[in-house]
Amino acid sequence: MNLHSLCYTQGRIYQICSLLLLVPLVVALFFGEIMPALLSFGIVAAGLFALGTLMTFKKPKKIRLRASEGMVITFLTWLSISLAGALAFMLAGEIPDFVNAFFETVSGFTTTGSTILQDVESLSHYCLFWRSFTHFIGGMGVLVFTFVINADSPADSVNIMKAEMPGPYFGKLVSRIRKTAVILYAIYFVMTLITFAFLCFGGMPVFDSIIHAFGAAGTGGFSNKNASIGFYNSSYINWVLTVAMVLFGVNFQVYFIGLRKGIRQALRSEELHWYLGIYLTISMLVTLGILRQSPNTAQAFEHSFFAVSSIMSTTGYATLDFTLWPLVSQVLLLFVMLIGASAGSTGGGLKVSRFVVYLKSARQQIFQARDQRQVVPVRVDGQILPESDKQPVLRYLSIYLIFLGLGTVLLSLDSPDLMTSFSAAATAVNNVGPGFSAIGPASNFSGFSDFTKMVLSFLMLAGRLEFLPFLLFFSPKTWQRTS
Amino acid sequence: MNLHSLCYTQGRIYQICSLLLLVPLVVALFFGEIMPALLSFGIVAAGLFALGTLMTFKKPKKIRLRASEGMVITFLTWLSISLAGALAFMLAGEIPDFVNAFFETVSGFTTTGSTILQDVESLSHYCLFWRSFTHFIGGMGVLVFTFVINADSPADSVNIMKAEMPGPYFGKLVSRIRKTAVILYAIYFVMTLITFAFLCFGGMPVFDSIIHAFGAAGTGGFSNKNASIGFYNSSYINWVLTVAMVLFGVNFQVYFIGLRKGIRQALRSEELHWYLGIYLTISMLVTLGILRQSPNTAQAFEHSFFAVSSIMSTTGYATLDFTLWPLVSQVLLLFVMLIGASAGSTGGGLKVSRFVVYLKSARQQIFQARDQRQVVPVRVDGQILPESDKQPVLRYLSIYLIFLGLGTVLLSLDSPDLMTSFSAAATAVNNVGPGFSAIGPASNFSGFSDFTKMVLSFLMLAGRLEFLPFLLFFSPKTWQRTS
Repeated sequence: MNLHSLCYTQGRIYQICSLLLLVPLVVALFFGEIMPALLSFGIVAAGLFALGTLMTFKKPKKIRLRASEGMVITFLTWLSISLAGALAFMLAGEIPDFVNAFFETVSGFTTTGSTILQDVESLSHYCLFWRSFTHFIGGMGVLVFTFVINADSPADSVNIMKAEMPGPYFGKLVSRIRKTAVILYAIYFVMTLITFAFLCFGGMPVFDSIIHAFGAAGTGGFSNKNASIGFYNSSYINWVLTVAMVLFGVNFQVYFIGLRKGIRQALRSEELHWYLGIYLTISMLVTLGILRQSPNTAQAFEHSFFAVSSIMSTTGYATLDFTLWPLVSQVLLLFVMLIGASAGSTGGGLKVSRFVVYLKSARQQIFQARDQRQVVPVRVDGQILPESDKQPVLRYLSIYLIFLGLGTVLLSLDSPDLMTSFSAAATAVNNVGPGFSAIGPASNFSGFSDFTKMVLSFLMLAGRLEFLPFLLFFSPKTWQRTS
Repeated sequence: MNLHSLCYTQGRIYQICSLLLLVPLVVALFFGEIMPALLSFGIVAAGLFALGTLMTFKKPKKIRLRASEGMVITFLTWLSISLAGALAFMLAGEIPDFVNAFFETVSGFTTTGSTILQDVESLSHYCLFWRSFTHFIGGMGVLVFTFVINADSPADSVNIMKAEMPGPYFGKLVSRIRKTAVILYAIYFVMTLITFAFLCFGGMPVFDSIIHAFGAAGTGGFSNKNASIGFYNSSYINWVLTVAMVLFGVNFQVYFIGLRKGIRQALRSEELHWYLGIYLTISMLVTLGILRQSPNTAQAFEHSFFAVSSIMSTTGYATLDFTLWPLVSQVLLLFVMLIGASAGSTGGGLKVSRFVVYLKSARQQIFQARDQRQVVPVRVDGQILPESDKQPVLRYLSIYLIFLGLGTVLLSLDSPDLMTSFSAAATAVNNVGPGFSAIGPASNFSGFSDFTKMVLSFLMLAGRLEFLPFLLFFSPKTWQRTS
């Protein structure tokens, strides 16, 4: 590990992040909450900027970052910005306890949306704004953002972006990295704006519309209402958000290609077909499952399409308490929770593209059992997936299951039943938000012990960064000094 | 598919299996139950023999079986012998309902040990004997047995043995297949006999000792007591069975090598180290978990070492109701249930050797993330595992998870909670026996619908044969006619 390069890069990132901490002050000014905001977010921003300046005082001659170092920087950044955000919550006095404040901030940045707040509505506006703003920042990646606006980006920024972009395929977007990132951010901004406009149009207050547009864009799920989206009791809002969540769960490459080469070309994406296919199939099955307990068919459709969209995109908004649905409907939701959204979207989870590779390798195994001389390659988008790309995807499943399994065991120490401990691990690793049983959408995570909350926080961080940055950060060998 | 070869081979197998159906008659003679036994097992045996003779009437010039055909034959055999066994139960009037009789027989042959019987103790001796005898037969594989005693075995029997031997490595045992099979069977017989002797010595009645020796040997778990091993309330018996179950979960290659090349060589097996390591670690953790609710430390050790041995070897005997243990202890049991026993043992599950490959490929992924130029091979027993062997193991995980996931969804239609549906799928796929929550060791499977029982039966068959034979059997392409 080149500690000097690490220190300098971190310093630059802290400077940028300190600017992000100033945004809630604008909101505070508007709502007449400027004094407490200055004494919390203002102080933390100033401190972080000072620290960043100190760390960038001596610029290294050449910044060299290997892929593994990029990953470690990524993890360190997410950890430190979460600590800074937690500090702001504590200083503001709105979440005085450290573990709770850390959990809430990690949940925000990782776009999970699990909360320890029992009464969200009692928070001040600038804190509510910051809470949801972390979703918006986390959605496209703190670091991608940093490098977009940081003109002095190191040459190896590709290695950092790689660590943060979700999904197995980084694709051909990398070539002109900065330009690409700007376009992706533009798409992200415009889509968020459109969601905001649609929500306002449906009669949702402007502040609430900002909050929920952020939550949908980052596939986070924090709401400023205790009853989440159920508060508005509006079919229009439910359907707007259903569509928005589905769209933010699509691989942004699809939009990128759509802009560059036309919609027809973009719609050819195989992952998109699988994503929508799974979404529609599971939504229909869940609708069937809840038909009997719904007042009418339209309601059954509305709530199940909303819930599946919310869980599969790993957002976590709720229109009602789906823990009251039949077990099979809940298990189907658990299934899409594990798969998650598309690679390259703002969502979490195993990712549809990986899931498809697993299905196809299962099929490959059957073909080869039938005729051992037959070589059946796995194809994605009509192209043969090379072994060098397939191997990491297959190995990823082991890592994913180890985190999920170990998480379930640790969370079982403090859970009433398997549905709680397993869904808590799954919702954290996949950055969804609510779970089932004791942590359904009508409940929250406040009842857990500090130990459990810390386990969940680190599961969220590990899952969001797809495990390797987490594992490398905690591996002593990574920290051996290099030039 | 060469239907003539298939038909002939099936016929031979039916003839052998009909002889196995006669064994319960000996027991019936001893206990004065010969008439009902003749009218059930006698009739089925005669019918099966007649059918077999009819099918072998015209011998093909040359028996040609490809690997995939071997797998289909394997599945067909397990299915038909289960149907024959079910018919015997129905004719005997002891399990009059078809679905129940089929479930119980499949559970026996697949060495699962799940039961739909609410009162086992009301069964006649010859039926109880047959029920446990299926474990003994199934433990080492119906077909291996057939080919050992069938002098007229086709040359391609390797392909059939391959389909039935559990675990990823068939190893170097194949070369002299018949001789090897005889030695393996001899080991199996002697170990069963020793278990029987130890149980008798502890004061267990002779009949019960036979039953429980069969159950331990095949890692099945059927008991002739409603309270399973808890009935005897004897620490001696508990520890004897704990050791026996652990030993039958060891790869039989270890014993084979021990006989051929000495114990020192045999103990070098890496899978053995992992198997015992996981067993001891989890047993200690479970002991810690139940320490507070046990009358004393010795009892905590006894019951947790027994339970972990029973679940990990996929036997399923119980000394007490572990569904009353703390959740974390149950989740640890669920974890060893999923891993299962060693490859090449009589046990089921994912197999320790595969689990180790998954762990090592996860580690490989971390190493390669640290330095992409570094090639880190996966080693087993100090040898580099070639890609051609590693690939199927990685792909197997996808197939395993698909069955487990789909099973959980289907079983959720008829379950009170996730712990029931997931553990029912897991206990069936891994051929364990009891599950958790509503299907713990103090309960049984009688309360489920016929649909659920059939799903469970097919999960047991699919899991026992490691899925490919099941998938090939139900794939239309397999049945295309070849010469």
